[in-house]
Amino acid sequence: MSIENKAPGKDVSSEDLETKFPLCAKQKADHKSQFDIAGVKFGSRDIPIFAGPNMVESEELIVETAKAIKESGGHFLRGGAFKPLTFPYRSEKYTETRERGIKWLQTAKDETGIPIITEVMEERYLDLISETADILQIGTRNMQNFPLLTAAAKTGKPIMLKRHFGCSLRDWLGSAEYILKENNEKVILCERGISTAHTHRSSSRFLLDLQVIPAAQEITHLPVVSDPSHATFWRSWVKPMSLASIAAGADGIMLEVHPDPENAAVDPLQGIDFDSFSSLMKNMQKVAESIDRNVIT
Amino acid sequence: MSIENKAPGKDVSSEDLETKFPLCAKQKADHKSQFDIAGVKFGSRDIPIFAGPNMVESEELIVETAKAIKESGGHFLRGGAFKPLTFPYRSEKYTETRERGIKWLQTAKDETGIPIITEVMEERYLDLISETADILQIGTRNMQNFPLLTAAAKTGKPIMLKRHFGCSLRDWLGSAEYILKENNEKVILCERGISTAHTHRSSSRFLLDLQVIPAAQEITHLPVVSDPSHATFWRSWVKPMSLASIAAGADGIMLEVHPDPENAAVDPLQGIDFDSFSSLMKNMQKVAESIDRNVIT
Amino acid sequence: MSIENKAPGKDVSSEDLETKFPLCAKQKADHKSQFDIAGVKFGSRDIPIFAGPNMVESEELIVETAKAIKESGGHFLRGGAFKPLTFPYRSEKYTETRERGIKWLQTAKDETGIPIITEVMEERYLDLISETADILQIGTRNMQNFPLLTAAAKTGKPIMLKRHFGCSLRDWLGSAEYILKENNEKVILCERGISTAHTHRSSSRFLLDLQVIPAAQEITHLPVVSDPSHATFWRSWVKPMSLASIAAGADGIMLEVHPDPENAAVDPLQGIDFDSFSSLMKNMQKVAESIDRNVIT
Amino acid sequence: MSIENKAPGKDVSSEDLETKFPLCAKQKADHKSQFDIAGVKFGSRDIPIFAGPNMVESEELIVETAKAIKESGGHFLRGGAFKPLTFPYRSEKYTETRERGIKWLQTAKDETGIPIITEVMEERYLDLISETADILQIGTRNMQNFPLLTAAAKTGKPIMLKRHFGCSLRDWLGSAEYILKENNEKVILCERGISTAHTHRSSSRFLLDLQVIPAAQEITHLPVVSDPSHATFWRSWVKPMSLASIAAGADGIMLEVHPDPENAAVDPLQGIDFDSFSSLMKNMQKVAESIDRNVIT
Repeated sequence: MSIENKAPGKDVSSEDLETKFPLCAKQKADHKSQFDIAGVKFGSRDIPIFAGPNMVESEELIVETAKAIKESGGHFLRGGAFKPLTFPYRSEKYTETRERGIKWLQTAKDETGIPIITEVMEERYLDLISETADILQIGTRNMQNFPLLTAAAKTGKPIMLKRHFGCSLRDWLGSAEYILKENNEKVILCERGISTAHTHRSSSRFLLDLQVIPAAQEITHLPVVSDPSHATFWRSWVKPMSLASIAAGADGIMLEVHPDPENAAVDPLQGIDFDSFSSLMKNMQKVAESIDRNVIT
Repeated sequence: MSIENKAPGKDVSSEDLETKFPLCAKQKADHKSQFDIAGVKFGSRDIPIFAGPNMVESEELIVETAKAIKESGGHFLRGGAFKPLTFPYRSEKYTETRERGIKWLQTAKDETGIPIITEVMEERYLDLISETADILQIGTRNMQNFPLLTAAAKTGKPIMLKRHFGCSLRDWLGSAEYILKENNEKVILCERGISTAHTHRSSSRFLLDLQVIPAAQEITHLPVVSDPSHATFWRSWVKPMSLASIAAGADGIMLEVHPDPENAAVDPLQGIDFDSFSSLMKNMQKVAESIDRNVIT
Repeated sequence: MSIENKAPGKDVSSEDLETKFPLCAKQKADHKSQFDIAGVKFGSRDIPIFAGPNMVESEELIVETAKAIKESGGHFLRGGAFKPLTFPYRSEKYTETRERGIKWLQTAKDETGIPIITEVMEERYLDLISETADILQIGTRNMQNFPLLTAAAKTGKPIMLKRHFGCSLRDWLGSAEYILKENNEKVILCERGISTAHTHRSSSRFLLDLQVIPAAQEITHLPVVSDPSHATFWRSWVKPMSLASIAAGADGIMLEVHPDPENAAVDPLQGIDFDSFSSLMKNMQKVAESIDRNVIT
Repeated sequence: MSIENKAPGKDVSSEDLETKFPLCAKQKADHKSQFDIAGVKFGSRDIPIFAGPNMVESEELIVETAKAIKESGGHFLRGGAFKPLTFPYRSEKYTETRERGIKWLQTAKDETGIPIITEVMEERYLDLISETADILQIGTRNMQNFPLLTAAAKTGKPIMLKRHFGCSLRDWLGSAEYILKENNEKVILCERGISTAHTHRSSSRFLLDLQVIPAAQEITHLPVVSDPSHATFWRSWVKPMSLASIAAGADGIMLEVHPDPENAAVDPLQGIDFDSFSSLMKNMQKVAESIDRNVIT
């Protein structure tokens, strides 16, 4: 056995394809997982849109946003109630809304019928969050929190697994395998930007990796979503990178949408407002049609 | 003055916009350079296509390729005669074809009328290459070879400046400024993939950075081309990344096209054949139309 | 407020120093945390050594290793019982030893008196592990598992916080702040290698970042340990990088030591055997003395 | 042949060792090039020191610096006369001094006897620079300017080849091979920092890669020098990273030394003054002795 074969590997090798990913690997070239979440089809030619604020700041804000997103054709309301914060100190305005936030998401769901995706950070809140959420989101920082992956998988809820900003496709698929192993087949991958030497503006933090979309789809049957908002951290790049995501083959798009993005509690440089979202939906639909896919269902 | 302000900077800051890029910076939001090269419009809603083999292997091969590219609607024939090789030792088959290669490019041009883009590595060959080439390409490894940039600029020939795989947008625009300073206004930027911690397959080397397209276009009036072939180093990713480049706003696409890609003298994993190119042209046209642009003119 | 000031930041800025790290930031230039763990001094001119196998494979192996490490002057026995595995499938030999592994560590401690450091991955095992461990290790993949940081901090046990291979110094100190905020002052930082475009050998995975040692020590009073074994993934680089770590100012060294490294259950390319460890201890002592510090106490 | 074997490779593989680097590869484990430049031994247990300002600002400054460096035991005076500048616009103070700068270096050499290392950027100045320089430096941006490498090699002058901040060890050795192929055996490699996602302070630009020192030395017989000044871009990290370089096995150290660093024409955050240099020389000597090597000869 050569040295390279005893080494752990950085990117996916031909050998890995046969040995590391038995559940998430495609069985044949056109193998694609297809499933339904709250009436929305995944893994088909449809491209579901997840939209909403980074943080569920208030009941009023989240209900208003849910209505706007639904009206423009968005499929899921996203919003953070339990959120990982890099630093423990935040002004009251920036604090997680936690249980209250989940309650507000439920209100938004009750009033509009829109299904919900929100982040889980701890096993202890899985039951609470699962009552409201249609999809559990595992955030970038927990991609390799294997006990959380297993516990979330066991709820039977669909799971969106965000790629860690410093992890490889190989690592990412390893984490997906932990979920699939629990007989939870509704797993969605989400690319949300990586750390690289250059991100172009001193105010941006990540680089949206669109190459990972065809790379992942070549290997796995799982749907791959793109999140251009968190990746770019820069409002004016969200539209072109959303359209590029669709053209690259993304199986869904996640967007940060806020009624007043410049005054959002977190990440005020990246959100788009309701009008921009509505307009972007139409643009995405056009690009989707050009590759025989569909955004507005 | 704060420490940060005395430091050289990694990415473009608000301050740079005002001080570092006087010639390549946009003067207003919709400022876009428009120019004509061999009858092809740059900086308009048209998206020129540059295609051909990595290396001008033989007269027969390059003439055959020129015909195929022209027939499918490609605008420029690309092909390397003088090429930087990472290692000085290559079998005869892999050696640069140098003066002979330029002669063969001229034959292809004479027989088909297609304009030519080819790489320059040394001032001493600028006159020779300029007789045949319609655009001089500065390769990734020479992006910060400032004397070469200046000498090439002085020929008056249009110049495509490829981004170094380890350089920032800030560095890249600094290099463009060297060319513009010589009163050469026909400068085209070309993204061709960057070195990152992960490139997904152990056989791929770079990551196509599509975020740099809107990032560059926000700052500069110069057209920005994307080269998905060199970036991905992987044939099956070329189509999705070409379509994504167009949707991201690329002002041109460069593609490696070869009559028999798997037996190409260099980079046998990335080229596409004539049929794939012809089909990709149609797919690119559809995506271009969806954003009110145009590939096939 | 400029755009840059509204942005989240990639590296530590002058402004961060004043606002983000109130507890881990130095109050004056020579501010250094000093504390004692199991009779070993941290933050002094002494440089504690943590050594042992990646995985606690068996009682016999861990007891034998504990003896060898103690005999050569090592201060802590390290060994993984609960371990994050990138892929869920491993042959029996490679499986975590979990509760059994902790019991074997306790046996090694009972027989030799050497204090123990081992990884915690889940809140549910904190009590169990805390009975045996003198230091709780938070692994690279859990650096931003904030609920785990808080729960571990509340045990009152000293904590070694490994840097995530994709995270910045700024992120790392943010995580340390979560621990300090719980009035747990015995926090040790550990650099263990980062993901970069190049790691030199196709068999290595990470790059040991020694620049982070002076960078961290300029900002924080917490001790900073270096782990050249995991960083290099390559046996022959462990000695030079250990000596370099000490010369760079490391406040401790973590090493993978195994009785038969080439047949270790995990990471067979990086461990060193008992003789190499004994010899390295003497070499490290000499370098430490040359900068007025001390390894063998 | 597997896909991976047809791919170009990112890091050095076992296979490369046998095929890509016939001239720079070690023939046996203890193979080390040994040569003499201006009476200074390379490849021995001695560790030559290269010191001086980033830019040869004036005759007075460079003569004063040459004296100070010689007095403290430094072996070579470094200073840039022809310098690559990222942006073409600089105030007069920051402009290259070019032919004048070379003349001033000659004066410093005449007055002190210290040998000179300075950068070459273009073939046209090779003769001029070779009259004064004892070592020709190829800067980071020209590492893959293969025609320049060949032309410089043909002068017969010793050459220091700086690693490009975005290139691999594999690329770097490929470039060294171009020089050795011209029967120029006096080749010195110099690591000067790489671009990575994080460099710790927002004011620093690069990360000193010390892991490349043992990695290179494992493969090649060429001496490997470290340049902590350019790598860190931060004065207070220069001392620890210099000592770490020596402990890692560096075969030479390059330092930016300036009579008044805070008012240096370029890079005012990284230079050290004469007293700091003198003190650092003593510290480096102590660390060198601890590994049976020698700085002050």
